[in-house]
Amino acid sequence: MNLAELRINPERLLGRLEALAEIGDTGDGGCCRLALTDEDREGRDLVVGWMRDLGLEVVVDVVGNVVATYPGQTGETPVMFGSHIDTVRTGGRYDGNLGVLAGLEVIETLSAAAGVALHRPVAVAFFTDEEGSRFPPDMLGSLVYVGGMTAEEAHDVRDSDGIRLGDDLARIGYLGPAPCPGPAPCPGPAPFAFVELHIEQGPVLEHEGVRIGAVTGVQGISWTEVRIAGQSNHAGTTPMGHRRDAGYAAASVSMRVREIAGEIGGTQVATVGEMDLHPDLVNVVAGSARLVVDMRNTLEGDLQRAERLLNEHLGQISASEGVEVETRPLARFEPVYFDERVIELVQSTAQRLGHSVKRLASGAGHDAQMLARVCPTGMIFVPSVNGLSHNPGEFTEPPDLVAGADVLLQVVVDLAQRKAW
Amino acid sequence: MNLAELRINPERLLGRLEALAEIGDTGDGGCCRLALTDEDREGRDLVVGWMRDLGLEVVVDVVGNVVATYPGQTGETPVMFGSHIDTVRTGGRYDGNLGVLAGLEVIETLSAAAGVALHRPVAVAFFTDEEGSRFPPDMLGSLVYVGGMTAEEAHDVRDSDGIRLGDDLARIGYLGPAPCPGPAPCPGPAPFAFVELHIEQGPVLEHEGVRIGAVTGVQGISWTEVRIAGQSNHAGTTPMGHRRDAGYAAASVSMRVREIAGEIGGTQVATVGEMDLHPDLVNVVAGSARLVVDMRNTLEGDLQRAERLLNEHLGQISASEGVEVETRPLARFEPVYFDERVIELVQSTAQRLGHSVKRLASGAGHDAQMLARVCPTGMIFVPSVNGLSHNPGEFTEPPDLVAGADVLLQVVVDLAQRKAW
Repeated sequence: MNLAELRINPERLLGRLEALAEIGDTGDGGCCRLALTDEDREGRDLVVGWMRDLGLEVVVDVVGNVVATYPGQTGETPVMFGSHIDTVRTGGRYDGNLGVLAGLEVIETLSAAAGVALHRPVAVAFFTDEEGSRFPPDMLGSLVYVGGMTAEEAHDVRDSDGIRLGDDLARIGYLGPAPCPGPAPCPGPAPFAFVELHIEQGPVLEHEGVRIGAVTGVQGISWTEVRIAGQSNHAGTTPMGHRRDAGYAAASVSMRVREIAGEIGGTQVATVGEMDLHPDLVNVVAGSARLVVDMRNTLEGDLQRAERLLNEHLGQISASEGVEVETRPLARFEPVYFDERVIELVQSTAQRLGHSVKRLASGAGHDAQMLARVCPTGMIFVPSVNGLSHNPGEFTEPPDLVAGADVLLQVVVDLAQRKAW
Repeated sequence: MNLAELRINPERLLGRLEALAEIGDTGDGGCCRLALTDEDREGRDLVVGWMRDLGLEVVVDVVGNVVATYPGQTGETPVMFGSHIDTVRTGGRYDGNLGVLAGLEVIETLSAAAGVALHRPVAVAFFTDEEGSRFPPDMLGSLVYVGGMTAEEAHDVRDSDGIRLGDDLARIGYLGPAPCPGPAPCPGPAPFAFVELHIEQGPVLEHEGVRIGAVTGVQGISWTEVRIAGQSNHAGTTPMGHRRDAGYAAASVSMRVREIAGEIGGTQVATVGEMDLHPDLVNVVAGSARLVVDMRNTLEGDLQRAERLLNEHLGQISASEGVEVETRPLARFEPVYFDERVIELVQSTAQRLGHSVKRLASGAGHDAQMLARVCPTGMIFVPSVNGLSHNPGEFTEPPDLVAGADVLLQVVVDLAQRKAW
């Protein structure tokens, strides 16, 4: 058996993606399986059923993360892979699901290949509430898994109807007994490595005609709420020189944010997608405005420089327009860098399998960024048609899905044969 | 009797302003007497009572405009003055009311001065629904008065609860029998002249330390709704070069509108006070935006130039950002120019009385702009503290109120002694 020639079964993978997408089917090509709803339970039951059919050891932990392990020749720490199967309200069929079902396919391929056992165990996981659409924050399950939040805290999170996460976890039968393997107070060893296959959710791979993304990390993110207080005035009777126009000041921030992205360059993105004027009337100079600036960069230094440039502009517009400006950070995460050895392995494996490959950072958050806290981690991206995600129109061409799963399989085989890093 | 030395009675004017402001008192210094409500009736009854106390001939016309005439030595066409006594929902105590009560004061001063009769009759008027807050359009009563709308059309206007203007006019007892004097189909002669005293509702007089404004006309107004369609996208995963950001395009319009005001200069004002993004979420590039551009100028040519510059920018941003831009005119009125002879008379009269005076255009609409269609017309402005209006904080210093009323008195005396223009 030449392990390097192992390939997954495309029909089986595509069939399972299809079957899982039928649960919570929104009728427009999309999927709605919000975390810990009946639809999520049904999806979990289907996937756990497939895990048990393969004879895997299935462990459910205290926040409902599910890990199914295929034994190795040794009992050393496993190579883990997976993602999530919960979706946003207007979700697609691939976000999360691909990583879990391709992981299952990796194990079935190994198992079917005359019961190949690698040096290390391999394990496919799906993590609870990655989307955070019902229960904040997002990536909650993997955050608890690595010890970033206690199970008790997680259980007390409530959805917008006041329902406790812990109660719904028990209700759907996924309040498991297993502790999490992260740092104290969670005991247990971390995996040897973690690899997540995911759709890109952006347009870069499709636009550049590249099939595989070797993900270098997750962008740092900076969300700043800006509140501007000016003077509400009659738009007809107030001369231009007398104005303290909060709407104008807000627009200037939006324009400046675009400029800042250009000045920083590289991976810098910067967006004002949320802006509200008050009183928001045609013939009244806006007395106040609120907007949120979303800036992301893979380099912490550049992200900090973008934040400084934003603050400089806020000071300038405050002075020139005579408005009061207050800011409040709504979110701030430093960039996450994946393990160079895993990135390199993804890249070389894709090349060996004849696929075009590009290193790129993720603009969205993923369970892998949590696992990166406790073990060498990497991700594999496949193209998203039109860059769409969190949208019923989310689509990835089947050859790309299969290519991503084959790269995952070969990366896992390589890692699971290693005695040490 | 030297008519040039006649002055109004300050205590009586301020007392009447106070008494009228008690009807619809909002408790915060403001006033709410929306057109044709019970509060409006109460205000009308109070003012009509004062008119009758002076022995004036009171005529109510078919849309509830009230004209009270003090006879002259001849039966020639009268010199008319006045304003309105309806308010916006969050109105002040001076907008409109000052012009009506100062007009009453003019007549009482003439009448008290040993029954002075001038060559022409003089008449004080208040027009129905100047604010348009309940029944659109604004200046409805004076519009009908000059024949710009038929009484039947006006009666069929409904408020947001579906109540007919004609029905509420009858309900409060102000559906009068008199026809309006405007052009056909309304018979009757137009006044010899019309003069309206009003608070400025802007900051110019206060800022320049000038007591009297000789109003040259009313700015032309151009309201343009702009709808922008781009592409909604993930703010983290969509590179800057791939964006079709409707929010950015909208902000660029707001910024360009400010620049246009500067480039046109003169009386040009330009505002974006109303702007809405969709979906208006921090981490989503806006897929669409709607905003309204308010541009005003006293010169029609300059206003048209501003409109052209706006359209040029919309074409440019549509091309550079890859967004679709649609526009729709929401309002478009050419500038109104008052009669130079009346403007000059206001200016020279103010100077004669020892007041600083400045020519300026009105940024807001007034009944006088309707009367200007049928007779030589002018306006007198007095300062608004902080430029505030349509606001409970609306305030004009009593010496300014009195000065404005004295200028009105002397302008009326001058006009009413004229045999012809």
